[in-house]
Amino acid sequence: MFELPRPPLSRQLSRTIGRLGLRPPILPPAVSRFLPNVIEPLGKVPVLRRWLSQLVVNYYGYATSPRPRALTLGSDYTTWRTLTDRTYTGRHLPPATLEQQGKWPDQADVVALFRRDREIKSTDTSVMFMFFAQWFTDSFLRTSRVDHRRNTSNHEIDLCQIYGLTEDRTSMLRSETGGRLKTQQIDGEEFPVFLFEPRQPGASLVVKPEFRGLHDEEFLINTILGDASEEHKDKVFAVGLEHGNATIGQTMMNVVFFREHNRIAGVLEQEYPEWDHARLFDTTRNVMIVLTLKLVVEQYIKHIAPFDFPIETVPFLADGERWNRSNWCAVEFNLLYRWHSLAPDAIGSGADRLEPGEFRNNNPLVLRRGIEALMAQCSRERAGKIGLGNTPRFLVDRSQPGYPSIEERTVALMREARLRSYNEYREAFGLRRLSSFEQLTSDLQLRRRLEKLYENIDHLEWYVGIFAEDYPDYLMMGELLTTMVAHDAFTQALTNPLLARNVFNEATFSRAGLEIIEETNSLGQIVARNSTSPDEVVVEFSC
Amino acid sequence: MFELPRPPLSRQLSRTIGRLGLRPPILPPAVSRFLPNVIEPLGKVPVLRRWLSQLVVNYYGYATSPRPRALTLGSDYTTWRTLTDRTYTGRHLPPATLEQQGKWPDQADVVALFRRDREIKSTDTSVMFMFFAQWFTDSFLRTSRVDHRRNTSNHEIDLCQIYGLTEDRTSMLRSETGGRLKTQQIDGEEFPVFLFEPRQPGASLVVKPEFRGLHDEEFLINTILGDASEEHKDKVFAVGLEHGNATIGQTMMNVVFFREHNRIAGVLEQEYPEWDHARLFDTTRNVMIVLTLKLVVEQYIKHIAPFDFPIETVPFLADGERWNRSNWCAVEFNLLYRWHSLAPDAIGSGADRLEPGEFRNNNPLVLRRGIEALMAQCSRERAGKIGLGNTPRFLVDRSQPGYPSIEERTVALMREARLRSYNEYREAFGLRRLSSFEQLTSDLQLRRRLEKLYENIDHLEWYVGIFAEDYPDYLMMGELLTTMVAHDAFTQALTNPLLARNVFNEATFSRAGLEIIEETNSLGQIVARNSTSPDEVVVEFSC
Repeated sequence: MFELPRPPLSRQLSRTIGRLGLRPPILPPAVSRFLPNVIEPLGKVPVLRRWLSQLVVNYYGYATSPRPRALTLGSDYTTWRTLTDRTYTGRHLPPATLEQQGKWPDQADVVALFRRDREIKSTDTSVMFMFFAQWFTDSFLRTSRVDHRRNTSNHEIDLCQIYGLTEDRTSMLRSETGGRLKTQQIDGEEFPVFLFEPRQPGASLVVKPEFRGLHDEEFLINTILGDASEEHKDKVFAVGLEHGNATIGQTMMNVVFFREHNRIAGVLEQEYPEWDHARLFDTTRNVMIVLTLKLVVEQYIKHIAPFDFPIETVPFLADGERWNRSNWCAVEFNLLYRWHSLAPDAIGSGADRLEPGEFRNNNPLVLRRGIEALMAQCSRERAGKIGLGNTPRFLVDRSQPGYPSIEERTVALMREARLRSYNEYREAFGLRRLSSFEQLTSDLQLRRRLEKLYENIDHLEWYVGIFAEDYPDYLMMGELLTTMVAHDAFTQALTNPLLARNVFNEATFSRAGLEIIEETNSLGQIVARNSTSPDEVVVEFSC
Repeated sequence: MFELPRPPLSRQLSRTIGRLGLRPPILPPAVSRFLPNVIEPLGKVPVLRRWLSQLVVNYYGYATSPRPRALTLGSDYTTWRTLTDRTYTGRHLPPATLEQQGKWPDQADVVALFRRDREIKSTDTSVMFMFFAQWFTDSFLRTSRVDHRRNTSNHEIDLCQIYGLTEDRTSMLRSETGGRLKTQQIDGEEFPVFLFEPRQPGASLVVKPEFRGLHDEEFLINTILGDASEEHKDKVFAVGLEHGNATIGQTMMNVVFFREHNRIAGVLEQEYPEWDHARLFDTTRNVMIVLTLKLVVEQYIKHIAPFDFPIETVPFLADGERWNRSNWCAVEFNLLYRWHSLAPDAIGSGADRLEPGEFRNNNPLVLRRGIEALMAQCSRERAGKIGLGNTPRFLVDRSQPGYPSIEERTVALMREARLRSYNEYREAFGLRRLSSFEQLTSDLQLRRRLEKLYENIDHLEWYVGIFAEDYPDYLMMGELLTTMVAHDAFTQALTNPLLARNVFNEATFSRAGLEIIEETNSLGQIVARNSTSPDEVVVEFSC
């Protein structure tokens, strides 16, 4: 009944590498072409896969000093409030000095750096990946509209997309029996119920009484649904978050996870007929959250890593680690995740081609085309390449005067947070400082533009720098962005209480639930087992 | 800028000892008389003191498996709610089986085990210790009156006794300037302001408008102040918690900490004249919380430990430890801390003698006698010995029919929580199971009584067992109680965010604040530096 006090070799090694600040070099093309042939077979050996997974996770887990951090956006000096009130967004580094702030260029010039001229496609990332990323991160990177310094999420990967942010909201979404979520059939397929009362054409939208208080209705109806078609408004599903129907990606992902919840509740009901509604619901939810964590690590992060490195959700991996501290999303995590340049100019071609206006607020399209067909189309279309100069115009330019664009709001939030410089973040995350713009990018035109705006590489703003970094084809983003997103993602996902040693067990998930967890490692599986045409399912993050 | 990955030797050693479950043997009298002569000189060597402190903390820190735990009083199976909703009280072990519950004796018989016939005095524990323990634990072991499964505290040592439980309440207690708490002078000494409006004799009590919402007024006036004198009611101070004036101990401790807050705010105001009110207040609060933590470890826990072992609040001690997880008070922690048998039949003798009725609701006494004189009297009087058969009658028997006594309510809470057996807790905390009542206690009469109630040692209830254990003179309580209180106390106190590596620094406390922290290691110091007669101050936990 006791454990060896010595951490396994891979932990020791990765901690040491991490703390020594050794970073992998950028590989010469000949090696990088060859390496996948080595890594993929290695990943098939379970012991090696676990070992390598631990190595990678700890390598990034120890990239910077662990939580708790002294400051949040709530205060520039340490207060008991900043140490305990998680409604305020965290921050990795203290605010920039006044001198630094004095050197910042005009906000409009920074926004302009992101504007796309001609779409640059990513090497192998699908639009399906983009929609997953958006759906996934919108659940914990929730900047408050009332006070930008606050995050309205629970800071956890908790599937609030389908369960809502509080128990009160969860109970609005639950059905009365069998541990299920409220459900309806449309053309022989299962969907969440509609949020609004049926209405006469032209009549105003009224939330069903059972869903009063689920969302901020004024914001939902006037802002999110502001320019949506009347047909979409009638087809808005009752799901956990107010943005849950805002893109076809959000809708598809929510429907798939909603179906999987009800499917698993059915499996458990059969296995454990003595369980009541509450136990079926809660146990299904435990299983569903861990399925999400598995997909995030084993499919989503795997795609971000070079050469589809076969990373695994090793149970209890975070157990003995110093980075295992309560989650607290940092403003840097919130900002670095704004991968707007993933958005393509269009999805598909010919009759099925979808313009950006058609991605948004379009449940009728999802219902007409079906989830399988749309996901297949999104899996075949490459997303944009992450980087400057590649954000679609509709996210950079204002659609109406006086109403800031998405990218303008992002740059404004960075400025409100008064972030330290790009080079200071490199240092804080164990990377050497750059001494020239030449080291940052080989794009001569961009270099000139940045030099004109910032003069000195030390003045370069972090949010610009992470998207300006050159990176080789086998990566999805630059060195600092990779390090920071991996650090924040691993230390958030793997500290989930469901993965802890005293919790990840049969009592928490049931035997049947554990089996589902074990056999699931891709989104495609989940889509297929809830599909009326499972053989046609194509869901890929690579393409 | 990197650390060696290997934990210091003392950590390795204590983890290993802890995990191997090696417990210190009970020493023969000859050795136990001799040992203090060895330990005290060792404790004077800083390196050894740190090393021994780490050893002891980790020894108890690893006594049982770490948080997060799967269950709370909110549910008997794992749900997302039980893993994240800290309004529910935690639990170390799952509930007892129905079979176990069927073997429990009548509640009244269990309560009767605690009733004092004749007071048994402790070896060397003062009544001052008792009042400190009550004041200190009432801030985080706050059973909800509305729902006994919940804890209304923040689970942290946060000095809510003087700051209140929420920011709203803190701002009611703050003055307008200089980082101070609202203050008044009475006979040349500083006190918190009164809670109620001045009134005509016999008029009803009215909370001052500025303190509306600070406490549940109905509960405070009708229950806590139910049988208090009119003189006391007029002298109730506005402090953080509703019970803050309920005993002379609560009042004295709150006044002392209140004065120290205002004193430190003054020191910082002089040092940092450019700081505004908010910064002075928040920085003072950071310092005050750490002072409390230091007293708890270096004076209070030191007294509980055998031979006044010189334990130290080693900075960052919890940093790399697996037991460093978010605080979540367990119901066992709440119950094991009910050291009612510490309460003496009376304090002092002759004209100054105080009867139990005089300990309670008696601010006029504190004002008349003065804090120094009362604390000296409480420091000279020995508390009762912790154990069965030694709880004063007024805590065991009902003062009015239909209104359960303190001990009755405690036993009722244990039963509501359906705790596992004494032997199961021994096992969970790394101690060997007992195989007979003989191993539990040498008290023949008690043994017979327990045998009659429980028949088999395996049926013995935990709350009875921890107070039935024999222990030698150089300890304050039995083996299981010591292990459990040390585990819960260390893993709660030392995980305080103010002690974390990125937080415990000059930026958080200021240079002047750090100096105050460094030079403070006893309650007596704090009393003396806020006293008009510092030379007369006697504040001791040992006597």
